[in-house]
Amino acid sequence: MASSVTSANIIRIGSKGKELLPDLVANEEPLEIRLGIGPVGEREQLNLSVTMRTPGHDKELALGFLFTEGIISNFKDVSSIEYCETIKPDEIGNVLRAELVPNIQINENKLVRHFYTSSSCGVCGKSSIEAISVPIIDVNSNFSPVGANLVCKLPKLLEEAQKVFEHTGGLHACGLFDKNGKLLKLREDVGRHNAVDKLIGALLIENALPALDSILMLSGRISFELVQKAARAGIQFVAAIGAPSSLAIQMAKKHNITMVGFLKNSSFNIYSGSERIEVSDDACK
Amino acid sequence: MASSVTSANIIRIGSKGKELLPDLVANEEPLEIRLGIGPVGEREQLNLSVTMRTPGHDKELALGFLFTEGIISNFKDVSSIEYCETIKPDEIGNVLRAELVPNIQINENKLVRHFYTSSSCGVCGKSSIEAISVPIIDVNSNFSPVGANLVCKLPKLLEEAQKVFEHTGGLHACGLFDKNGKLLKLREDVGRHNAVDKLIGALLIENALPALDSILMLSGRISFELVQKAARAGIQFVAAIGAPSSLAIQMAKKHNITMVGFLKNSSFNIYSGSERIEVSDDACK
Repeated sequence: MASSVTSANIIRIGSKGKELLPDLVANEEPLEIRLGIGPVGEREQLNLSVTMRTPGHDKELALGFLFTEGIISNFKDVSSIEYCETIKPDEIGNVLRAELVPNIQINENKLVRHFYTSSSCGVCGKSSIEAISVPIIDVNSNFSPVGANLVCKLPKLLEEAQKVFEHTGGLHACGLFDKNGKLLKLREDVGRHNAVDKLIGALLIENALPALDSILMLSGRISFELVQKAARAGIQFVAAIGAPSSLAIQMAKKHNITMVGFLKNSSFNIYSGSERIEVSDDACK
Repeated sequence: MASSVTSANIIRIGSKGKELLPDLVANEEPLEIRLGIGPVGEREQLNLSVTMRTPGHDKELALGFLFTEGIISNFKDVSSIEYCETIKPDEIGNVLRAELVPNIQINENKLVRHFYTSSSCGVCGKSSIEAISVPIIDVNSNFSPVGANLVCKLPKLLEEAQKVFEHTGGLHACGLFDKNGKLLKLREDVGRHNAVDKLIGALLIENALPALDSILMLSGRISFELVQKAARAGIQFVAAIGAPSSLAIQMAKKHNITMVGFLKNSSFNIYSGSERIEVSDDACK
């Protein structure tokens, strides 16, 4: 099993001139996900994409990916998930096989979204946005407003929590907080999509979805796909240190998600769902 | 043709309390790349992946992608590249078709690297790393060392150049500099891989590859794939504001690329190829 960090000898150029130092860097390795599907006696294997990820929480990553891509709808859809052993030695720990229960219908055309598609594929005739969308059931919970002061504290809370996990400065992080600012879950990865999939996979395993009344805090920028993943998990509040894209905002509005970007200790931008944030006179001071 | 930015009404929470402001956000839209391949009279269409990108420099992006994925080896392999018109109105500007010259052999198994693959696919038996590698001809130019002082100036030079292009704070940037710190090319995108593909695509069109004696400066972190793209373009020096991953360092060492990370105005780390950096006593002061 690979570790999430590797030691490296680096040369540091700085105020002390040139120093040779040991350092830690984030591991990045390919993860291949294989699916076992079909009725008993006629099981088939489908090999899904290779994603470059930081080893650790791999099963959560795979399950989160299967869930956020719309391939499974809950943890019970998977009867087992294990690392493949009958592969080359250097691949061990980097290939997972998930057995789906026999009655799960896989839309193979749907699986090729994003990906290389032959001209006979069903995706090609669809509009591109349609091809990359996944099924989302909008939640209609009564999300009572949170204070702007709490929102402003999230970057520091995420950073502090990350210090416990993070050794390299090279990882994206996402944290799920409750409305009092308590950290419920933290995951990290070289890929920000993977970090979110790991977090959602962990919630899926704990049967904690939809993640109502929680805030997803991201260390980077907000892409369309990250909002889609949040929506799929029933998360109604997404905050990020970075900027959202146009399509991310569109997606947040469509699914009634509050979106905050450029979040700092004393300021932030609200792009959608401002009714869920209460601003007092001494906000973020 | 879609623009690279969109206006948005935002609520800004900060020292002035709550303000309703107009703002600009980076556009993110799907780009689908279609290939026309095969001998005259038997032309076929292959639909490649949908990538989420910031509109602008789309042809460069598509050509850079085809080059860095190893599908084409130079600009002459493409007889034309145009936006598809016979598609749904809302897709116009988001679908490009590149006509490859008849004698280009496409390895369809290779194209499915990363992606969903059926169990009959050739990739699956290979090791994962092998599956995601592209052909690289290592360059053996005599890259004379650059001073550490110049390296330390690159983040500021990139930032200044980006101000001209950037309106949103939401885009990744990559800049190609010569060894005197002169900016040769700058590209931006919501996706850092796309930014690099746009830059390399532009060089491909100008017949400026391999990009010897130049420095690729990245606004973010360094993944394995970014180094692979640089190596494919013959770039021997990659510097970044963020951290590299373990596999990025491995790739840089393998292809004799100098790699600098955590680059600030007064310090940086060297992960490989330190012989190409000269450190004087007053380095980065």
